[in-house]
Amino acid sequence: MTTVQRDAIRTRRALLEAAERALMVHGPQVSLEAVARDAGVSKGGLLHHFRSREALLRALCEHWIQQYDDAVARHLEPDDGRPGRFCRAHIRAAFDPSIGDGPWRNIAVQSALLAIPGLFEHARINGRRWEAEMASDGLHPQRVLIISRALDGDSMTEMFDTPSDDDERTTLRDLLLVLTERNEPLT
Amino acid sequence: MTTVQRDAIRTRRALLEAAERALMVHGPQVSLEAVARDAGVSKGGLLHHFRSREALLRALCEHWIQQYDDAVARHLEPDDGRPGRFCRAHIRAAFDPSIGDGPWRNIAVQSALLAIPGLFEHARINGRRWEAEMASDGLHPQRVLIISRALDGDSMTEMFDTPSDDDERTTLRDLLLVLTERNEPLT
Repeated sequence: MTTVQRDAIRTRRALLEAAERALMVHGPQVSLEAVARDAGVSKGGLLHHFRSREALLRALCEHWIQQYDDAVARHLEPDDGRPGRFCRAHIRAAFDPSIGDGPWRNIAVQSALLAIPGLFEHARINGRRWEAEMASDGLHPQRVLIISRALDGDSMTEMFDTPSDDDERTTLRDLLLVLTERNEPLT
Repeated sequence: MTTVQRDAIRTRRALLEAAERALMVHGPQVSLEAVARDAGVSKGGLLHHFRSREALLRALCEHWIQQYDDAVARHLEPDDGRPGRFCRAHIRAAFDPSIGDGPWRNIAVQSALLAIPGLFEHARINGRRWEAEMASDGLHPQRVLIISRALDGDSMTEMFDTPSDDDERTTLRDLLLVLTERNEPLT
C-alpha cells in the first residue's frame, strides 16, 4: 500500500468518526459542512471521499455493521466446539463496550438512515444474516429464537433507557449465555 | 351521558381512527386537513377536539397505550393464581391480532411521535410500568427480564419484517409462555 492510499484510508476513517460525532450533536439533519469542519477537512475534501450526504450515511451504516462483525469474530472462542458458540459470540459482541453508545442508538438517527433508499432492506438482510449465523452450530432453534429476540429487545431498550440500567444489562447478558449452555428444547 | 356527550366521544374516536389511517398513507408529516377529510369533518371540527397536530398525535399515543392495556386486561385469566399470570397476559396481548399492524409499527412514525416534547419520557414510563406489572406476581425476575426483552425485540422485528414471519411469531409466543410455566432461576 502506498502512502497516498494509507492517507486516504486514514482520512476516510476520520470522516466517518466525525460524522458519528456530528450526528450525536446535530441529529439526523447534520450537514456535510459540520462533518467536514469536525474532521478538519474542506467540504471539497469530504466530497472527494463521499460524493453526497447519502453516500456518507450509507458508508457509516456499513462501518457499524463491520464493527459489530469484528466484535463477533473477536468473541468467537477458538477452542469452543459446543453448540451455541456463535450465539455466545453474538451475545458477548452485543454487550461489548466497543459497540456501546453510538448515534445508531438514537431513534431519530435510525429513522433518518432507514429512509435512505435501500438501507432498510440492507438492515433487514443483515439482521437475518446474524440470525442465520447464530442458528448455524446446532443450538436448538427455540433457544436461538429467544436469544435473537432478546438481543433485539436489548438494543431497543438501549434507545429508551439511561446508562443506570447497566446492571440489568449485565444480568441479561449472563442469562442469555446460560440459555446457550444447554441444548434440550424448551417445550 | 347526554346525546351531545356520546356524539363527542364518537367523533373523537373517528378522528383518532382517521389519524391512524392517514399516518399509514402519508407518514409522519400527515396534515390535519388530511385527517379531517378522512374522518368526514371540517378542519374546524377537528380543532374543536384536538387543538393542534401535536395534541392529536399525543391522544393517538394514549389511545394505543389504552388498547394494549385493554388487551392485557382481557387476557388475564381470572382463575389463574400461579406466578406468571401477568406475564402470560402481556405475552398474549402483544401477539393479539387486535394490537396488530398500526402506524406505530412504522419507524418513521415512531420517531416523529417520540420527538414530540414529553412523549419519549411517556413511552419510557409506560414500558417500565408494564415491566413492573409483569414482575408483580412472583415469577422469577430472570424469567421476567428475558420475556420483557424478547417482547421488545418482537415489536422491533415487526418493524422490519414481512407478515410471512407469522409462524415464527407464533413459535416465539409459545416459547415465552413456556418460560412462565416454571419458576426456578435460570442460572
